[in-house]
Amino acid sequence: MHLVIIGGSDAGISAALRAKECNPSVEVTVLVADRFPNFSICGLPFYLSGEVPDWRTLAHRTIEEIEGESIQLFLNHRAVRIAPKARTVTAIDNSQHSHEIEYDKLIIATGAASIRPPIEGLGLDGVFPLRWMGDAFALEKYITDRRPKSAAILGSGYISMEMADALTRRGLHVTVLARSGSILKTVDSDLGEMIRAKLQEHGVRVIDRFVVNTIGQKGGNLILKNDQQHVLEAALVLVATGARPVTELARDAGILLGDRGAIQVSPAMETNIPDIYAAGDCVETRHRLLRRSTYLPLGTTAHKQGRVAGENASGGRAEFEGSSGTQVVKIFDLIVARTGLRDQEAIREGFAPLTIDSESWDHKVYYPGATKMRIRITGDRKTHRLLGAQIVGSYGAEVAKRIDVLATALFNEMKVEDLNKLDLSYTPPLGNPWDPVQMAAQAWTRKQDRAQ
Amino acid sequence: MHLVIIGGSDAGISAALRAKECNPSVEVTVLVADRFPNFSICGLPFYLSGEVPDWRTLAHRTIEEIEGESIQLFLNHRAVRIAPKARTVTAIDNSQHSHEIEYDKLIIATGAASIRPPIEGLGLDGVFPLRWMGDAFALEKYITDRRPKSAAILGSGYISMEMADALTRRGLHVTVLARSGSILKTVDSDLGEMIRAKLQEHGVRVIDRFVVNTIGQKGGNLILKNDQQHVLEAALVLVATGARPVTELARDAGILLGDRGAIQVSPAMETNIPDIYAAGDCVETRHRLLRRSTYLPLGTTAHKQGRVAGENASGGRAEFEGSSGTQVVKIFDLIVARTGLRDQEAIREGFAPLTIDSESWDHKVYYPGATKMRIRITGDRKTHRLLGAQIVGSYGAEVAKRIDVLATALFNEMKVEDLNKLDLSYTPPLGNPWDPVQMAAQAWTRKQDRAQ
Repeated sequence: MHLVIIGGSDAGISAALRAKECNPSVEVTVLVADRFPNFSICGLPFYLSGEVPDWRTLAHRTIEEIEGESIQLFLNHRAVRIAPKARTVTAIDNSQHSHEIEYDKLIIATGAASIRPPIEGLGLDGVFPLRWMGDAFALEKYITDRRPKSAAILGSGYISMEMADALTRRGLHVTVLARSGSILKTVDSDLGEMIRAKLQEHGVRVIDRFVVNTIGQKGGNLILKNDQQHVLEAALVLVATGARPVTELARDAGILLGDRGAIQVSPAMETNIPDIYAAGDCVETRHRLLRRSTYLPLGTTAHKQGRVAGENASGGRAEFEGSSGTQVVKIFDLIVARTGLRDQEAIREGFAPLTIDSESWDHKVYYPGATKMRIRITGDRKTHRLLGAQIVGSYGAEVAKRIDVLATALFNEMKVEDLNKLDLSYTPPLGNPWDPVQMAAQAWTRKQDRAQ
Repeated sequence: MHLVIIGGSDAGISAALRAKECNPSVEVTVLVADRFPNFSICGLPFYLSGEVPDWRTLAHRTIEEIEGESIQLFLNHRAVRIAPKARTVTAIDNSQHSHEIEYDKLIIATGAASIRPPIEGLGLDGVFPLRWMGDAFALEKYITDRRPKSAAILGSGYISMEMADALTRRGLHVTVLARSGSILKTVDSDLGEMIRAKLQEHGVRVIDRFVVNTIGQKGGNLILKNDQQHVLEAALVLVATGARPVTELARDAGILLGDRGAIQVSPAMETNIPDIYAAGDCVETRHRLLRRSTYLPLGTTAHKQGRVAGENASGGRAEFEGSSGTQVVKIFDLIVARTGLRDQEAIREGFAPLTIDSESWDHKVYYPGATKMRIRITGDRKTHRLLGAQIVGSYGAEVAKRIDVLATALFNEMKVEDLNKLDLSYTPPLGNPWDPVQMAAQAWTRKQDRAQ
């Protein structure tokens, strides 16, 4: 039985490893478009910041480790056609030679691509997207060779925030152009303002509603213009305005697409064509709270979906349980995390949310290094069910794992007040007798009781 | 309605605050044996280490804050008699005056006391217990005035470990006398050995099975002898051989005692005598996994039980949901945490446990500062239910909140393999696409599958 996987990033390699683990007799071939299988592309901002000195360490696993699991890697093989009836994939290698590969089962894990907004001049020297290893190498080379003094970042999402941090660390003067006027739209706008303050504290300029129309060149610099002919100059431009699923190959094979052009999949990660599965940033993801599929590309989800696809393609039975939209990002020394639904999202889904903030020290304030974190809890007024949470706190304050406690509560459909029943750990250097997540639950419950 | 609370530590003050919150018309009086209500006695090792320079900051709340909630504090009032029929408590103040206080509802929160092992010479100058503020002041004064160069610590539990750290920071040569030969018996003995190695790395000597018989004096030093007439010299001796519930008052009033002499209570924290509740380190605690009551005094539990007792005594209806035995301790830069049952404990409870270790980096190893943590998962072979976990890792590696993710899973009676379905947060500086707790669950599941 030959399993072919198109794509060698998180979903593809997870699928390959799981297939081999479940059924060692399956022959597994992975087509990798570049020569960097299983690289942690989430780590690219930290390579570019200088915090990760050697890009080779970004590999989750080396090629030797993957091949050591009897997985066949075809590097620099770009898949260009799937023929479902013939059960073949056509791939083109570096020398433009075409190869036809037969499969019994196929997993599509083609990932996502940076969105190219309709801006004139995106092809100019010094203008970069950031998605794959090649993008990072080009950007690194430009910074090293040209020593740009300033950078403009188009977009205000996760990658923009991490790159504002990274390029500031590299000594560039960074300007973030927030098209919408919001910073990190995945959290509430007032929490976004806390991020804006942190950026500004580190010298990052943020300009709202500057929608770039054209990029031109003048002297050694790039000139960004918007509709109103306002002008911004920068030596480097990073275009980080979002990602779109790479699904042309699937579409041309007759595979159904859904939200934002992502591949429609069953909980078993099956497409509408028998024996073809799909996983990762190219597919729709079922959201546990929305109870429907949406486009929500995340590394954690890609790993989970890849694992499910690999298990099923090798004869097993597994289902992807869905995402709760849990995310965390580090921006300088600020940690911003979320899980589940925000107030407005909950309203749109027909819940009757109550959303309450609380502020707590991460550990007993008498022990050195205590910092305050803000926790925002959203729960349903009728059922009291926890619907979501957002936390903004400091690096070192265990914010990420606190959102995970809430994500675990969310998974189990706990009521907000029942968070107080959890037996959480406590020692003064690391917590409080009531953990901040419990203080937040108490604040929510007090407000809810008063509203009754 | 007059609510009288005996005890001004965690359980007592939690009860008082909750009673006032639920029913502001209740008159609340708290009898405090010393003049330090609501002090974080868990913080005493960090005061003695010098990390907390001002003991006043150890107060969870100041006297003014507590009185600001219209709670009446009788400081330096030691309760000596409860008369349930007359509904009175007799207390003796600093000047040995006796006061009789009438109550409608009574909450006993008398806490625990340090066990005094049967050793001759416990009363000598330089020999200290550590439980209350007064103990800490005496110890601090001795260290400041006498500048002892060495200390012997009797016991190898939480306080011993924290004090070995604290006294080493103060420049003393510390010897820990581990009566049983085990370090921190609340975790498995091989994890205890990791703690032993950490102690030794910091110059702490550990002597196993040295059971002190007598303490004498010679020159300026204390001389500890065991049965075999082996001798150890130290300038300071800390006796930290455990705690016992303080329940003489309750017993004399006809209140039923249970495990290790702790007060028997219902889930509503009621004793067997109407209108008398009890909470905190003086009561038995219901263990969620053992499904029975045991003596398990912890600060987190005291706060929860106090809150329940306060709510019920003021006319509400609440129940304490039980403890899972979640604990964490910092020993130098080592963090040791546990929740639920260990393998041997699970066997005793009639489970068929499988216990598996895994070792993972706390975050992506390419990002600076990654450290490895060991996670031990215990699950039931038949039902696959998560029964417990232990983690040993580094300070800064979010070990405490990872045990909390597992404690939350435990509360919700999750299966081990379902930990992989959790949507946990990920960014390279703070985690992995599969969190260490999920890697541990995968290791458990692989072993379980192979055993089938």
